[in-house]
Amino acid sequence: MSDDLKSRIAALKAEVAELEAQLPPPVSPLAPAAFPDLPEIDGVRFASAAAGVKYKDRPDVMLAEIADGAVMAGVFTRSTTRSAPVLRCEESLAAHTEAPEKAGKFAILVNSGNANAFTGGRGFESVDALREGVAAVLGCEAERVFTSSTGVIGEPLPHSRIETALNGLVAGLDAGHTRAAAEAIMTTDTFPKGASAEVELDGVPVKIAGFAKGSGMIAPDMATMLVYIFTDVKISQPVLQRILWLENANTFNCITVDGDTSTSDTLLLAATGRADMPVIGDFSDPRVKEFRKSLQFVMRDLAQQVARDGEGASKLIEVRVTGANSGGAAHRIAMSIANSPLVKTAVAGEDPNWGRVVMAVGKSGERAERDRLTIRFGDILVAENGWVAPSYTEQAGADYMKQSEIVISVDVGLDNGSATVWTCDLTHAYIQINADYRS
Amino acid sequence: MSDDLKSRIAALKAEVAELEAQLPPPVSPLAPAAFPDLPEIDGVRFASAAAGVKYKDRPDVMLAEIADGAVMAGVFTRSTTRSAPVLRCEESLAAHTEAPEKAGKFAILVNSGNANAFTGGRGFESVDALREGVAAVLGCEAERVFTSSTGVIGEPLPHSRIETALNGLVAGLDAGHTRAAAEAIMTTDTFPKGASAEVELDGVPVKIAGFAKGSGMIAPDMATMLVYIFTDVKISQPVLQRILWLENANTFNCITVDGDTSTSDTLLLAATGRADMPVIGDFSDPRVKEFRKSLQFVMRDLAQQVARDGEGASKLIEVRVTGANSGGAAHRIAMSIANSPLVKTAVAGEDPNWGRVVMAVGKSGERAERDRLTIRFGDILVAENGWVAPSYTEQAGADYMKQSEIVISVDVGLDNGSATVWTCDLTHAYIQINADYRS
Repeated sequence: MSDDLKSRIAALKAEVAELEAQLPPPVSPLAPAAFPDLPEIDGVRFASAAAGVKYKDRPDVMLAEIADGAVMAGVFTRSTTRSAPVLRCEESLAAHTEAPEKAGKFAILVNSGNANAFTGGRGFESVDALREGVAAVLGCEAERVFTSSTGVIGEPLPHSRIETALNGLVAGLDAGHTRAAAEAIMTTDTFPKGASAEVELDGVPVKIAGFAKGSGMIAPDMATMLVYIFTDVKISQPVLQRILWLENANTFNCITVDGDTSTSDTLLLAATGRADMPVIGDFSDPRVKEFRKSLQFVMRDLAQQVARDGEGASKLIEVRVTGANSGGAAHRIAMSIANSPLVKTAVAGEDPNWGRVVMAVGKSGERAERDRLTIRFGDILVAENGWVAPSYTEQAGADYMKQSEIVISVDVGLDNGSATVWTCDLTHAYIQINADYRS
Repeated sequence: MSDDLKSRIAALKAEVAELEAQLPPPVSPLAPAAFPDLPEIDGVRFASAAAGVKYKDRPDVMLAEIADGAVMAGVFTRSTTRSAPVLRCEESLAAHTEAPEKAGKFAILVNSGNANAFTGGRGFESVDALREGVAAVLGCEAERVFTSSTGVIGEPLPHSRIETALNGLVAGLDAGHTRAAAEAIMTTDTFPKGASAEVELDGVPVKIAGFAKGSGMIAPDMATMLVYIFTDVKISQPVLQRILWLENANTFNCITVDGDTSTSDTLLLAATGRADMPVIGDFSDPRVKEFRKSLQFVMRDLAQQVARDGEGASKLIEVRVTGANSGGAAHRIAMSIANSPLVKTAVAGEDPNWGRVVMAVGKSGERAERDRLTIRFGDILVAENGWVAPSYTEQAGADYMKQSEIVISVDVGLDNGSATVWTCDLTHAYIQINADYRS
């Protein structure tokens, strides 16, 4: 009887799998309605191509050319097993903190399908071949070419396929080709991610536009994904680098999908200096504050899009922690909640299981006192004074959990430290995507 | 067309869910063939009952009576939001380190269905009522009664239902009732977990027997589950406590299912002193080494059974790390691998995705050098010198991953630190169990 049932269930599941394979690739239900209209940034052009790195007939290489006079800032994964492209980017960044007038063009070359990580000495051979190839076709120095690779770890990058595509890429360069560039760097992403802002600095209009990829292996430290942002602001490299580092802490370091950290995470910010303005040469320049606000807007938008495209995501979760002993403590408590599989599965099941939030606060290692905790789902007061709130009803909690964007707020009740992080729920689709990625 | 397909898929899935509900509750495929025959421990008796804490007609309360003259050791969760029963156990333990001759009976009362955690002042009221109830029926002091509760967080424990069951429990006490006791404390466990050992200490036979529950919310610090072990060894409390603490680090602190830490974890070890031997009063006593070996065997067996019953587990994973900078570093690298959702889903998918192992080493925060790492799946050399091993074939890796017990070995190549931890894979069933636990 039980065996009959089991074989019937297996047959039905096989039929489901067959039918699902016929469906178009799903797009995250949390995706924005459309890719935004990104402004062109004076001095930057993009191109993309299908080089066949892993799959045929799918755009998988992106080239960005940044005109003479720009400065470049960057932040990279802190993984101790970071990839050859990341290590070379770090070298290039350290070598190019000089004044922009000394410089030539910059270029960024990104491929999807293969991460060129843990590929021994061949990893550097591939990066160096690509840097020299780009330098030759663009007429710039090889160490001014930044490359990123994303995809499978441990397989040699077939870089000659990308080299073959370089002339075509250069011929296709265009300031408006951002969407195609954003699409070429996608792996398990279900939608391309772009964001932009415009700001006036002392009356001079400045533009910021960028795109990102990432949907799994997403956790701090740092972006755990690939992000490229461009602006025409005129600024010195050290100031730009400091701003990027600070805003990264507020944005990309505040998202997590699965707590896993990539070997390849790269965030680059190029400033072309084409805006008609006096250079920002000092962090205390009053324009820095305005610029940071807009840059943070773009970075947070991209970071949230990555969380929205978390593998298998059906709900976006914002975790707000206040009242902790410090900002760092608040961040660690928030991340403990955001990374808890039990919290994430409860949200997937639309279960207002606030006991799991208490558990996650308790395991964070940060100071907390049961009787001072206050927990809210959205505006609903759920728990306070060490127990469920008298006004809370399970029905109110259950109704709230049906929403596609969930806010979990925890006030620790100790001091003023606060932090906000974003993640997504943990669903069957995450298992489906990751139990079967390489085959 | 796509909408037709989707509704057909939804209908099939509904049918699958309906049929699955008719199946008997599944038992982990990694469960031992049978519950072991546990030896009776002189001085300890057990009883269980169905008190209706949460579900009807399901044994959910266990009472253990430990005769006069015993000593008790314990280790508890380090969660900062630990439950009222855990806090009371800690108080009782601190108050009972005196010589056994000063003492009376000990008792352990455990219920499943409700964790009595985050229940405000009512949490202590419940614990105290139960302690006094047990003290009255057994004729012992209330503070010599240890209680544990496991199940849902945040709901008041209906302790009067348990009080009603106390007389029946006392009437049913029997030294052989270990299996029923182990079953009464199960929550999402799919099988009861028991283990035992016998050892001769200077020619005197000593017995150790214990049982455990736990299958989700399993991560260090410490056992993140409930474990009760009994022995007739004659030993002083401080020596027993030190031994328990040390062996806990080697056993229950080396397993993880989901990286989540419970508010209720409790490990108690009672030594009745009934063995006919001179007391072990000093840690340097040569018998300590032999006793530790046997206790470690029992504790490791129980710990591995918990990993085997990890929610949704289809494969047991042993992670062995050698060559790290220290034992602590090795443990943290091993836990980083064992807690990685990407590693765990790869194992579920029988995918020899060693790149994800590299990723998990890299994110651990411990020192590692890409070119010194050596990775093995079982006896198969997979990667060395910063890249895939020349002898490795994808086919060999894929064949190995079909086994139900997987060993992942990582040699960091730096120093002598080593550690071994156990976990299970991350499957659809974990999502199923946890997205729907409370309803």
